[in-house]
Amino acid sequence: MTQDPPLRLFDLAGADEHRRFSPYCWRIRLALAHKGLPVRTVAWRFTDKQAIAATGQGKVPVLVDGDRWIHDSWAIAEYLEDTYTDTPSLFGPGAGRALARFLNQWAAETLQPAIARVVVPDIPAILHAQDQDYFRSSREAAFGQSFEALAAQRPQALDNVRRLLAPLRSTLGAQPYLAGARPLYADHAVFGAFQWARMVSPVALLEPGDPVEAWVERMLDAYGGLARGAAPAPAVGAAS
Amino acid sequence: MTQDPPLRLFDLAGADEHRRFSPYCWRIRLALAHKGLPVRTVAWRFTDKQAIAATGQGKVPVLVDGDRWIHDSWAIAEYLEDTYTDTPSLFGPGAGRALARFLNQWAAETLQPAIARVVVPDIPAILHAQDQDYFRSSREAAFGQSFEALAAQRPQALDNVRRLLAPLRSTLGAQPYLAGARPLYADHAVFGAFQWARMVSPVALLEPGDPVEAWVERMLDAYGGLARGAAPAPAVGAAS
Repeated sequence: MTQDPPLRLFDLAGADEHRRFSPYCWRIRLALAHKGLPVRTVAWRFTDKQAIAATGQGKVPVLVDGDRWIHDSWAIAEYLEDTYTDTPSLFGPGAGRALARFLNQWAAETLQPAIARVVVPDIPAILHAQDQDYFRSSREAAFGQSFEALAAQRPQALDNVRRLLAPLRSTLGAQPYLAGARPLYADHAVFGAFQWARMVSPVALLEPGDPVEAWVERMLDAYGGLARGAAPAPAVGAAS
Repeated sequence: MTQDPPLRLFDLAGADEHRRFSPYCWRIRLALAHKGLPVRTVAWRFTDKQAIAATGQGKVPVLVDGDRWIHDSWAIAEYLEDTYTDTPSLFGPGAGRALARFLNQWAAETLQPAIARVVVPDIPAILHAQDQDYFRSSREAAFGQSFEALAAQRPQALDNVRRLLAPLRSTLGAQPYLAGARPLYADHAVFGAFQWARMVSPVALLEPGDPVEAWVERMLDAYGGLARGAAPAPAVGAAS
């Protein structure tokens, strides 16, 4: 490792290189901010597989720390926690890391797949030309449905998201953050899903007054407004 | 509070007073064992509302500690943690309590309703006669369906449970307990759902080899085999 390591993060971008919309990359952007670690982000598109070939796989986030390349958001979070031990903890003591793993997995395996059925048909509108064919063919194969069929089922998909949010809603009705009085990585991991939705789709996932919305607002403001500084998706029919 | 408080727990029972099958009561049975606190359980049926009228509501668990009556499993867990501070912690330090709240709510609001659609039609077979009418009418109203209709949809309901278990499965594939190396209240809360299913229905929720199954086995053995000592539901068609 070099002295004063220049951290670099390969970060998913749209046609506009400033539209950084990956839920998994947002986890790491927030984790780095939590630890006060400066990072240089590198705009990356789905089809830029060669740029991250050193990791032996094809997805971001990828963190480069000197001569170390780390992929997978959870692995990056653990790397940051165990390497930069003199910075604020992402997990806290005791069972904090083990319990955060469940929330991390819930966001990835329950929440995000449900949100995807709402927002994925909007994503082509923000993608770079080089990613259009890859994105549609890979996602339609994963869903076993065309984007047009998904779009037609959007009302039911939105109902499903709101139903699955029940435990988040009751938890955040009782405490300001998932980790308690202040956000930790569990908050970063779950919030990534909402930031993703916000940046790719004009659909409102939450009904007005939902306690989850107040937490989303707090997370948008956290770390100097890092997440709020990223532009939301344009409203449908908005002048460009 | 009296000296050496004789803790009493109103504990949901079936026709056989030894069949204690409430997922919420199991949370507290395990939490009390974790803290090494002896308890005298009192067999209670759904329609014994008068016995717990002091709490101003009609559900168990209800813990009686001297002249204090506490209801709601989460409130009881917090009471035990904050009262018996010289016994092993249910949450650990830092964000442990806040993060456990999410797992507690996920078990109650996502996992248990999904499991209910699998096991509820089996519950009348173990209930006391006094509870039969109450249970069927209240549950059929809640589901908006007859038990016969629910039973006919059991294969799809079982698929749904297994899909919702994805984050539990990946977490427990990476660590022995939800709280890490040893169980804490997050484990008690989620395991309560599996102990409930085991005690009321012969249906196997998990496929062989599921990492969740290995954790269930560890939880059955924990605290001197407390949960394993409770008899599972009889197999369908078993001689009685």
